[in-house]
Amino acid sequence: MSSPLINQFEMPFQLYDVLAVEQLCQHQDFSEHSKETFDAVMDTAEKMATQLFLPHNHVADQNEPTFDGKRITMMQEVKAAFDAYREAGFIAARYPFEEGGMQLPETVNIALSSYFMAANPSSMAYPFLTSAAANLLSHFADDGIKRAFLPKMLSGQYTGTMALTEPHAGSSLADIRTTATKQDDGSYRIKGNKIYISAGDHELADNIVHLVLAKIPGGPAGVKGISLFLVPKFRLNKDGSVGDSNDVALAGLLHKLGYRGTTSTALSFGENNDCHGYLVGEPHCGLKYMFMMMNEARIAVGYGAAMIGYRGYRYSLSYAQERTQGRIAPHDKPNDPPTPIVNHGDVKRMLLAQKAYSEGGIALCLYGANLIDRKRIASDSDEQKDLAELLDLLTPIVKAWPSEYGVKANDIAIQVLGGAGYMREYMAEQFWRDNRLNPIHEGTNGIQALDLTFRKLWQDNGKGLSVLQRELINDLAKVDTPKAAVLVTKLTPYLEKLRVLLEHMAKSMQSASAMTLSGNAQAVMNVMAGIVVSWMWLRQAAIAEKLLAGQHSEEKTNFYLGKLQAAKYFINWELPLIDRDISVLMEDDATCVETREGWL
Amino acid sequence: MSSPLINQFEMPFQLYDVLAVEQLCQHQDFSEHSKETFDAVMDTAEKMATQLFLPHNHVADQNEPTFDGKRITMMQEVKAAFDAYREAGFIAARYPFEEGGMQLPETVNIALSSYFMAANPSSMAYPFLTSAAANLLSHFADDGIKRAFLPKMLSGQYTGTMALTEPHAGSSLADIRTTATKQDDGSYRIKGNKIYISAGDHELADNIVHLVLAKIPGGPAGVKGISLFLVPKFRLNKDGSVGDSNDVALAGLLHKLGYRGTTSTALSFGENNDCHGYLVGEPHCGLKYMFMMMNEARIAVGYGAAMIGYRGYRYSLSYAQERTQGRIAPHDKPNDPPTPIVNHGDVKRMLLAQKAYSEGGIALCLYGANLIDRKRIASDSDEQKDLAELLDLLTPIVKAWPSEYGVKANDIAIQVLGGAGYMREYMAEQFWRDNRLNPIHEGTNGIQALDLTFRKLWQDNGKGLSVLQRELINDLAKVDTPKAAVLVTKLTPYLEKLRVLLEHMAKSMQSASAMTLSGNAQAVMNVMAGIVVSWMWLRQAAIAEKLLAGQHSEEKTNFYLGKLQAAKYFINWELPLIDRDISVLMEDDATCVETREGWL
Repeated sequence: MSSPLINQFEMPFQLYDVLAVEQLCQHQDFSEHSKETFDAVMDTAEKMATQLFLPHNHVADQNEPTFDGKRITMMQEVKAAFDAYREAGFIAARYPFEEGGMQLPETVNIALSSYFMAANPSSMAYPFLTSAAANLLSHFADDGIKRAFLPKMLSGQYTGTMALTEPHAGSSLADIRTTATKQDDGSYRIKGNKIYISAGDHELADNIVHLVLAKIPGGPAGVKGISLFLVPKFRLNKDGSVGDSNDVALAGLLHKLGYRGTTSTALSFGENNDCHGYLVGEPHCGLKYMFMMMNEARIAVGYGAAMIGYRGYRYSLSYAQERTQGRIAPHDKPNDPPTPIVNHGDVKRMLLAQKAYSEGGIALCLYGANLIDRKRIASDSDEQKDLAELLDLLTPIVKAWPSEYGVKANDIAIQVLGGAGYMREYMAEQFWRDNRLNPIHEGTNGIQALDLTFRKLWQDNGKGLSVLQRELINDLAKVDTPKAAVLVTKLTPYLEKLRVLLEHMAKSMQSASAMTLSGNAQAVMNVMAGIVVSWMWLRQAAIAEKLLAGQHSEEKTNFYLGKLQAAKYFINWELPLIDRDISVLMEDDATCVETREGWL
Repeated sequence: MSSPLINQFEMPFQLYDVLAVEQLCQHQDFSEHSKETFDAVMDTAEKMATQLFLPHNHVADQNEPTFDGKRITMMQEVKAAFDAYREAGFIAARYPFEEGGMQLPETVNIALSSYFMAANPSSMAYPFLTSAAANLLSHFADDGIKRAFLPKMLSGQYTGTMALTEPHAGSSLADIRTTATKQDDGSYRIKGNKIYISAGDHELADNIVHLVLAKIPGGPAGVKGISLFLVPKFRLNKDGSVGDSNDVALAGLLHKLGYRGTTSTALSFGENNDCHGYLVGEPHCGLKYMFMMMNEARIAVGYGAAMIGYRGYRYSLSYAQERTQGRIAPHDKPNDPPTPIVNHGDVKRMLLAQKAYSEGGIALCLYGANLIDRKRIASDSDEQKDLAELLDLLTPIVKAWPSEYGVKANDIAIQVLGGAGYMREYMAEQFWRDNRLNPIHEGTNGIQALDLTFRKLWQDNGKGLSVLQRELINDLAKVDTPKAAVLVTKLTPYLEKLRVLLEHMAKSMQSASAMTLSGNAQAVMNVMAGIVVSWMWLRQAAIAEKLLAGQHSEEKTNFYLGKLQAAKYFINWELPLIDRDISVLMEDDATCVETREGWL
């Protein structure tokens, strides 16, 4: 029998032991829920992911959607999976009961995606983007738009996209050229080209709702002139039914190295000057609204990357347990039977690293999602502000670290498989390819590092940072078990190093060294992420060690011991790497920025 | 116009300035050569690679060879490239004039492969494997075998393979099951299955010469019972012409994630008990012979990885010079034109890292190849022994470091391209996939780390290590320019750290900590490679800085400045990372080995 997608103890440990999500049910918003309802939804998700998403993950990679100039053809299994997902009500999982949702906490909403992301990230893109787009509309769109589109998005009759990027501008949204010209009826005519639009066309749903960034002619230059529009693939008739084509053309499918089951599209809006768009919120505020969707997408990207990393970990672990090769003393005579490779020291190192990266990423993203819930139930506004600032500070880390280390984990999984690792007959290489998108989309990791270095660390006078320190020190102070305590002694010196570093950077920001920092932003990301993920591991280790005192099955005892060991690995092997970054930053090392183009 | 495959100054700098290869011409073996003849052969290689190998690299990736059960079909361009290569005499480039070769030094032989590996590593696999197999036969086969096969391999009428791996045994050659049963006529009948055999079948040549590891029944168990056999695809007639099929069947093509233009095969020998093999050298010495080919292949794998890394570097550099995005103060008003992304600090960092990894790998592998030449021309046998030990010590590093960092460089190239990086319409993702084989084949990097940790460091009482220290210190002592001198002061402390570490490890090897080391071998590799590659960069920096004193074109001045800058990057940013590894090793950190299977 194949092992389950996720270790049976992992999600309950994260949800109940580490994050105590059942305490959220004391709040009126979640009072209908309990550990039992959470478990039920997690169970359903696991079954559906295993039965309907997992089986076509590899096949869909090898049978990409095609476009004959008129229609997109894709595997029937993708639609079957999508339909099951939407019929289970998962797109609306976090929406209020009165909107047909399950009113689940964000933490559980993200947690239930675990199984789908591990099973088949490509097929999961369609409902995920729909849910994220719906969330944006529910916050910022007017009632007319909401009434017309929201229920159908939440039920999955319509899907959603985010249409930001243009061919010439990439990450530089200030330079987009798509225009939105106001008409007498209050609607706009959209004209422009967008690229890399995931799920931008397909036949899974009756309609596709594009959230498009565009500029209203005459508005301010740069990012201040960007507005957000809802642009449906098909216009709606007066009675709300799907009507005529809205002059949104599929210019072509793009061919990615991974996530091949998700259509990636180049879209052309208004080729015939007849593309109707509807302003969302106020004019010129589009980027602010879009950032809400993007920030959410950033947690999801980080979490998806961690889950693909985790899947590769489990896959390579199974391989290492079955595959025999070589011998270990004292059983190393030629006639001794060969040993499963999981017993080799270097293979253990590779598995432990994958575990540390992927489960560290899982804990980090769930912590981030949990901040949304904590903010929601916080009774006073200071606390809400604190948690919002902390989430803002962590968002670039939540996006960048798991996506960088998820790919690393998948790279190691290939290495564990040896020759089988690079064969397309095995899954390891697909995980690696799928995950390689994550350091790029929803804001490249370079942009995340700049956001952290130049904005988030200092935002609101460093409020997020002081909340981070408070939470971290609070957690460390609670550690009262011996093995976790050893790890605390190793992490603590880095808090002082960080304090000194930030003082130094605050000065640098005011001087010519600010430019130097633009070449060293990745070092800042490394330092912050190294400390934050160590903290995430310490939280897990401290709880696991405490739980070990109880009576458990051998399997569960091993699970807790594994948590302790991965924490030890992370803090002994990964955390010290940031000493390099601290040095580079303390010395204002200008090697990168002083490099001239001609030298390269 | 597209930029040349390799910066015009790079290969002359490596060959003449860093390695002074023209001095080899003072030796009688190379007395017919001069800088002019070396330049001529490099020129020919560059033209041929650019005209015949480069154009089908991307197309061949998308049009893999197919097998219909009878015949393999592959793109005609592969054969055209192969024919041009063999007709130019490149397969025999390093062979004596009297064997139809060019009698080139090994350094130049490897250097001329630069253009082919950068242009199209898949198509280069066929001639490369042929040359390596021929070299093995020329050393160990008897005259009869040599007469029958060698000239036709050197001319490329026949190609060669190395057939080691079996499906159940992987890296564990001790466990191979292929048998070779002696016949009355002195030949053997071969029976068994081999897997992952690159270039194991194709229609580029009249015959394929498999070098097959097999066991003669009744021989010793384990690796001591392995013998080496020449097994042709077609037997030869008495007159030397190609005769009947030799019962070597293509069981199937394997589908790799990269190097897709090279057939990767599962071969079945002797299904009909009629597969003739010819013993090479003595019985039971096969592994020793094969290691000669493998050690050579390991330099080539390292070098190929560095060149694919280099190609990705150049490709992403071109992209960064053309692609505009964002603005840099003081030109950061919305209406200022966007800047080429090469000007962003974080992009410079990514380009510099790629340069440091790929050119560091190039210098390292050429240094290794040059040791073969230095050994050949050495006048006394002590010096020969010294250089052989040094090469032995460096071989695992030469294989593992460039292959690990080549993939990292290609990963960074993808990141420089952003969304275009993960599109298959661009080349960056192919470089990354192609290069991912290199950390695995010819001995996984894990095996290289074990080889270094448990064997090479201590071989012949640490002779290789003391030669390494002598050469390194000698180079550092010669540095007399200011910028390189600064880098020397940063590298020097690591030599003392290494001395202390090796003392510690020598003790550990005698204790229970030896087992701990098996989980920490990668850390040993990191330390050794970090120091060795820093040394390679210092050699380049010192020479570049010296040359800067002369009068040069702006382009050439920039080239030298780039070498200095990349050296500075490597020593400031990469070298300090080994402090983590030194700590782990000094503390005999047992995190990896103590991990139990159930904890994972």
